[in-house]
Amino acid sequence: MADTDDRKLTGLEELRRRFFGEGEDVFTGIGKTLDFRPVQVDEGRVIFEGHPDERMYNPLGIVHGGYAATLLDSAVGCAVHTRLPAGQAYTTLELKVAYHRALTKDSGPVRAEGVVLTLGRRVAFAEGKLTDAQGRLCASATSTLLIM
Amino acid sequence: MADTDDRKLTGLEELRRRFFGEGEDVFTGIGKTLDFRPVQVDEGRVIFEGHPDERMYNPLGIVHGGYAATLLDSAVGCAVHTRLPAGQAYTTLELKVAYHRALTKDSGPVRAEGVVLTLGRRVAFAEGKLTDAQGRLCASATSTLLIM
Amino acid sequence: MADTDDRKLTGLEELRRRFFGEGEDVFTGIGKTLDFRPVQVDEGRVIFEGHPDERMYNPLGIVHGGYAATLLDSAVGCAVHTRLPAGQAYTTLELKVAYHRALTKDSGPVRAEGVVLTLGRRVAFAEGKLTDAQGRLCASATSTLLIM
Amino acid sequence: MADTDDRKLTGLEELRRRFFGEGEDVFTGIGKTLDFRPVQVDEGRVIFEGHPDERMYNPLGIVHGGYAATLLDSAVGCAVHTRLPAGQAYTTLELKVAYHRALTKDSGPVRAEGVVLTLGRRVAFAEGKLTDAQGRLCASATSTLLIM
Repeated sequence: MADTDDRKLTGLEELRRRFFGEGEDVFTGIGKTLDFRPVQVDEGRVIFEGHPDERMYNPLGIVHGGYAATLLDSAVGCAVHTRLPAGQAYTTLELKVAYHRALTKDSGPVRAEGVVLTLGRRVAFAEGKLTDAQGRLCASATSTLLIM
Repeated sequence: MADTDDRKLTGLEELRRRFFGEGEDVFTGIGKTLDFRPVQVDEGRVIFEGHPDERMYNPLGIVHGGYAATLLDSAVGCAVHTRLPAGQAYTTLELKVAYHRALTKDSGPVRAEGVVLTLGRRVAFAEGKLTDAQGRLCASATSTLLIM
Repeated sequence: MADTDDRKLTGLEELRRRFFGEGEDVFTGIGKTLDFRPVQVDEGRVIFEGHPDERMYNPLGIVHGGYAATLLDSAVGCAVHTRLPAGQAYTTLELKVAYHRALTKDSGPVRAEGVVLTLGRRVAFAEGKLTDAQGRLCASATSTLLIM
Repeated sequence: MADTDDRKLTGLEELRRRFFGEGEDVFTGIGKTLDFRPVQVDEGRVIFEGHPDERMYNPLGIVHGGYAATLLDSAVGCAVHTRLPAGQAYTTLELKVAYHRALTKDSGPVRAEGVVLTLGRRVAFAEGKLTDAQGRLCASATSTLLIM
């Protein structure tokens, strides 16, 4: 998918251009469908923000657990991406999410922050935390990612 | 949300009525947003089916990992629900998802099957598997759930 | 197992007496078998220290992954225990351990630190980190625990 | 560590020679310390057997959670090893263990069975189950492993 220019960008540069670059539309795909987007991209640390509403509810009347999993997966994956040199990619091997507090349409804006724990040549480990508008921890995650 | 009649239903009866009952519309909330729905509900075993498309894509051009997490979370949670007596509820404490194979818009219909491993008075453990239209294992999950 | 006096101790007091009390021998059971012991017990935070040697090796010539799992399980469980009021107990529901760096007999003394993430009425979430003598992260863990 | 001959053995052959070969002593290191050993090695499936006793107890008077983690880690790792061609090795990236039922000195002999879920060029996923002498599920595990 990447053109020649993309290959010369580091992961951090690529993410920043994709997320905040002129003319770029980050708000597509799952981000548009579930209404969340990146708001901060630093080396080893990425934050996504979302506005959960009833379109993400489960039949129990609260936000489905898959919503927090989605934002946290994005946050930890992009955090690892920011640490990759040009030409390297990653894929998520596994993600574990712990649910501390239920989300509702009144919880947002929520923030999912991903940070890199360790980065090796072939594998990275990252963790993430999702907090509600009051700063309370609602979900946390750990993830194992393969570097390619 | 439950009226007086609901309280008398076992978890299996309640789920079957909610999912397949006359006049019920299961296709709301996250199920409608991400286009998946229950197709089979047995005691201790529930299957959801989904049709991933580009609305669930991440910027890498494949279905976001949160999609499989969502279907698997539904499957394991509902599997536990089918084993609960009337008047009991559950909440998901944690979910771990392993990603075996990437999903694309050509993968579907995909099926997420959840089964109960053990059910105690206060805690249940369940596992799930998500397969593509060719029956290949694309994601698997384990989950810990609290019985209330 | 607890006598009348024990029932009046908070979790923090009970752990401190058991670990550091006069006449107490903490170095029994698994701690003696795998040569590790508590070195610090604060509210919501417990540290165990171990000295891995060849008795903990796997056939690949490094310390078996079960060793880090054991120390981290102790650390996160005891961290939760320090937050419990008198009369409450806990049990570990699940533990996930990520392996960042192999341990050998030259790694020690290693330290496993457990901290509580959130504590509710029925469930606690905790995380832990195991570092070698040089302070490098060798293993990390997250855990879900039931409060009884 | 492997000599020239070892390089010609597949993972299955290597494990069988190491575990059951004439003159080999499998009962060293962690296996000797925690009293468990392999009893069955098939392609993609390995079983370890153990005899928990008070040397593995935690201060709560039951077998420490690290014991089940150790046997399950061995089982899932060796299961993957049996699927590797000559010259390949593996390392465990992460292990998640769910605790279904407490173990005591009366639980044994216990069996930890590991099976491969999927094996790719760079990554394998495996799962394991630990049962007591009565066949009851006491602990289960999932693991992500790197192929090298």
